[in-house]
Amino acid sequence: MNMRDIIIAKRDKHSLTDEQIRFFVSGVTDGSIPDYQISALLMAIVLNGMDEREMTTLTLEMAASGSQMSFPYLKGIPVDKHSTGGVGDKITPVLLPLLATFGVDTVKLSGRGLGFTGGTVDKFESIEGFNIEVSPEDFHMYVKQTGMVVSGQTPDLAPADKILYSLRDVTGTVDSIPLIASSIMSKKIAGGASAIALDVTCGSGAFMKDYGMAKELAEAMIKIGKLAGRKTVAVITDMDQPLGRFCGNILEMQEVYNTVTGKGEEDVVEVVTELAFQLIKMAEKTSGMSDDVLRQEIRARLSDGSCYEKYKALITSQGGRWIDGVGPVYVDKPFDCMHVNSPDSGYVQSVRADLIGQASVLLGAGRLAKTDPIDYGAGIGFFVKVGDKIERGDSLCALYTGAKSNLPEDKLFDAMDLILEAYTVGPEKPEKKPSILGVLT
Amino acid sequence: MNMRDIIIAKRDKHSLTDEQIRFFVSGVTDGSIPDYQISALLMAIVLNGMDEREMTTLTLEMAASGSQMSFPYLKGIPVDKHSTGGVGDKITPVLLPLLATFGVDTVKLSGRGLGFTGGTVDKFESIEGFNIEVSPEDFHMYVKQTGMVVSGQTPDLAPADKILYSLRDVTGTVDSIPLIASSIMSKKIAGGASAIALDVTCGSGAFMKDYGMAKELAEAMIKIGKLAGRKTVAVITDMDQPLGRFCGNILEMQEVYNTVTGKGEEDVVEVVTELAFQLIKMAEKTSGMSDDVLRQEIRARLSDGSCYEKYKALITSQGGRWIDGVGPVYVDKPFDCMHVNSPDSGYVQSVRADLIGQASVLLGAGRLAKTDPIDYGAGIGFFVKVGDKIERGDSLCALYTGAKSNLPEDKLFDAMDLILEAYTVGPEKPEKKPSILGVLT
Repeated sequence: MNMRDIIIAKRDKHSLTDEQIRFFVSGVTDGSIPDYQISALLMAIVLNGMDEREMTTLTLEMAASGSQMSFPYLKGIPVDKHSTGGVGDKITPVLLPLLATFGVDTVKLSGRGLGFTGGTVDKFESIEGFNIEVSPEDFHMYVKQTGMVVSGQTPDLAPADKILYSLRDVTGTVDSIPLIASSIMSKKIAGGASAIALDVTCGSGAFMKDYGMAKELAEAMIKIGKLAGRKTVAVITDMDQPLGRFCGNILEMQEVYNTVTGKGEEDVVEVVTELAFQLIKMAEKTSGMSDDVLRQEIRARLSDGSCYEKYKALITSQGGRWIDGVGPVYVDKPFDCMHVNSPDSGYVQSVRADLIGQASVLLGAGRLAKTDPIDYGAGIGFFVKVGDKIERGDSLCALYTGAKSNLPEDKLFDAMDLILEAYTVGPEKPEKKPSILGVLT
Repeated sequence: MNMRDIIIAKRDKHSLTDEQIRFFVSGVTDGSIPDYQISALLMAIVLNGMDEREMTTLTLEMAASGSQMSFPYLKGIPVDKHSTGGVGDKITPVLLPLLATFGVDTVKLSGRGLGFTGGTVDKFESIEGFNIEVSPEDFHMYVKQTGMVVSGQTPDLAPADKILYSLRDVTGTVDSIPLIASSIMSKKIAGGASAIALDVTCGSGAFMKDYGMAKELAEAMIKIGKLAGRKTVAVITDMDQPLGRFCGNILEMQEVYNTVTGKGEEDVVEVVTELAFQLIKMAEKTSGMSDDVLRQEIRARLSDGSCYEKYKALITSQGGRWIDGVGPVYVDKPFDCMHVNSPDSGYVQSVRADLIGQASVLLGAGRLAKTDPIDYGAGIGFFVKVGDKIERGDSLCALYTGAKSNLPEDKLFDAMDLILEAYTVGPEKPEKKPSILGVLT
């Protein structure tokens, strides 16, 4: 078997055999297949696709290319959650403590953000003292202690995926359902969760721009999950406008604190409730509650202090500073440096989340290259969302930088221009779109 | 401009702009674009194609990536010829002296063979003393002296093509009309010929298996040639069976000698006559002869000693040993070591030239890797061709090795098996196929 024949098989629209996929992943992992052959095959996969069996084999081989986690000491079913990324997506820090109130153990490996979709790792790092680079021993210790852990991905988990991903980024081979699905699922499977909830975002601020594509990706991942013996559910969520009231690291963690103390935005609460609902059911921790009662109970725990207690436990167990009655202590303070006002009166018709995300990166809240520094205090606050009424001259957004930032003025004005482009205001009140667009099992 | 966007443009089926192609070729040439990005774009081109403008720009940019030859001292139109490769293809050593009898100057850059299609360079190297690695100064000296030169390609001619070609071979991106056409034409254009005749072979022993594909490639090259200001003609020739009576380096050069002394095989004579006819017309050296008279005159020169004299001049001017009345002196002697006999009686229906070529490589006549040595005396002689009658037990082929060869017996038997697979013998006399399948201008 040789790599050239494997490339030619996919170029000529054949299905790759399990042996061919195994040969490929093993050669990627041990470095015996040169980059130029890998990228040629990746482009052939982007253009000619992969069937379900090929995707599943690719996923399992990538998952097996490094160490694989397991939690034999847990009595229950360890769960994990993954989002395909969005602007203002602060679901994970709310979901983990919420699940813990139901006795569901969550083993969450997160990534740093790149581009305009913020990373969960960066958000937790905005808390003073919080240790996100968790050693393997500490990982298991946290799970045992609190039933929760959030960790930057360990280096030897699915190393084949890491190599492919870095090549895909520079060779225009990111946009491919089989490659996206196998990349996500290989990490989830190596991470050892027995039940997985996928938050597949959909809209202007998401990787999947329309519902059809989001559904296709969700279905591919569910098939892989099931063939790999994991309970898998996908929730397709709206990302046509930013989620919640803020984007930016500290700003989002402040909103998380509001949410776990019962003052969350309705869209955030809706998404977190649905994901919690699906994971509690898969983890078999419903305590016999009917679906309706379980959903009410989930919402109740956000207000009755139980989610708050678990959130405090999550932050403090991993070393984050906490002041009772105030919440976490952050590494910086957001500084409200400019408001962007509406040039028109009317109803907000749409808010392009991608442009909001780009503005947020300009302010310093995100990074374009892996080594870029982050301004944890930077971000954007949204005074109005789709369907809200606004008068000409009223504020659409507040732009924040960290208190110590020296942001050049031109970047601030560029951000303002993006915000003005992002908002459309018109005379008719638009129909309200639900936050949950679909649930696939 | 960056390479990732160029890859994505072609992935998404857009035409690349001239600027994008220029950026690509210049980055390939100076090494600033990494291999893995080059191969991703090559695969996207294989699967999504290129239009005529893109192909032409790619060709001209590759031709301009190194030095470009010119012949300002020639009064006439320098011509060149290229074959897409075949088994037993000994056209070049006959065509050059034949054209010289008409005062047509030929500037021929040839390649070494790889795979089962023999290289012209290897054939000339089978003559004792023949110097094929011609320096730039000597190149022009030969052209001035004899109006003929045959040279292994100089290293700095179309270096971008050389880099792309080596990557294409290992990334399954050889099969692409735009990439094949631009590769061939970039070298022809950099080689400085003003008129180009393309021998596009077609059939089992050729790269293009059917007439439709051969025609498509021919048309692409003609369009590029014309857009680049070169007179260009393509002759589509049959390569469903080997050309002539022999394949193998010395064996073919012996057949060349027979051809320039009026004893050539009809198929060889047909192809060489048509190519000479097209090139003489493009070089405006018809001396007012009508087409029919010119064709007769071309054939006459193969028998009347004038082509023989020019052939002697070509061989001796580049240092090859020659004995009058005998011809060139070769570096070895072919040794007739086994005959393969027909298991059936009837008419030869077909001879798969690819299998004959593979058998010939097994005997030592060709190389699979660039550094493999060649047995110049090895090859195959054909007792029968398509349409010939044969009795069970009569010889189909003679297998040769060089006199000094130590070929393992199992290779000889493997070659025999390939020969038996290559020949089909049946009861009906098949219709004779012409050697020239089409002429495109």
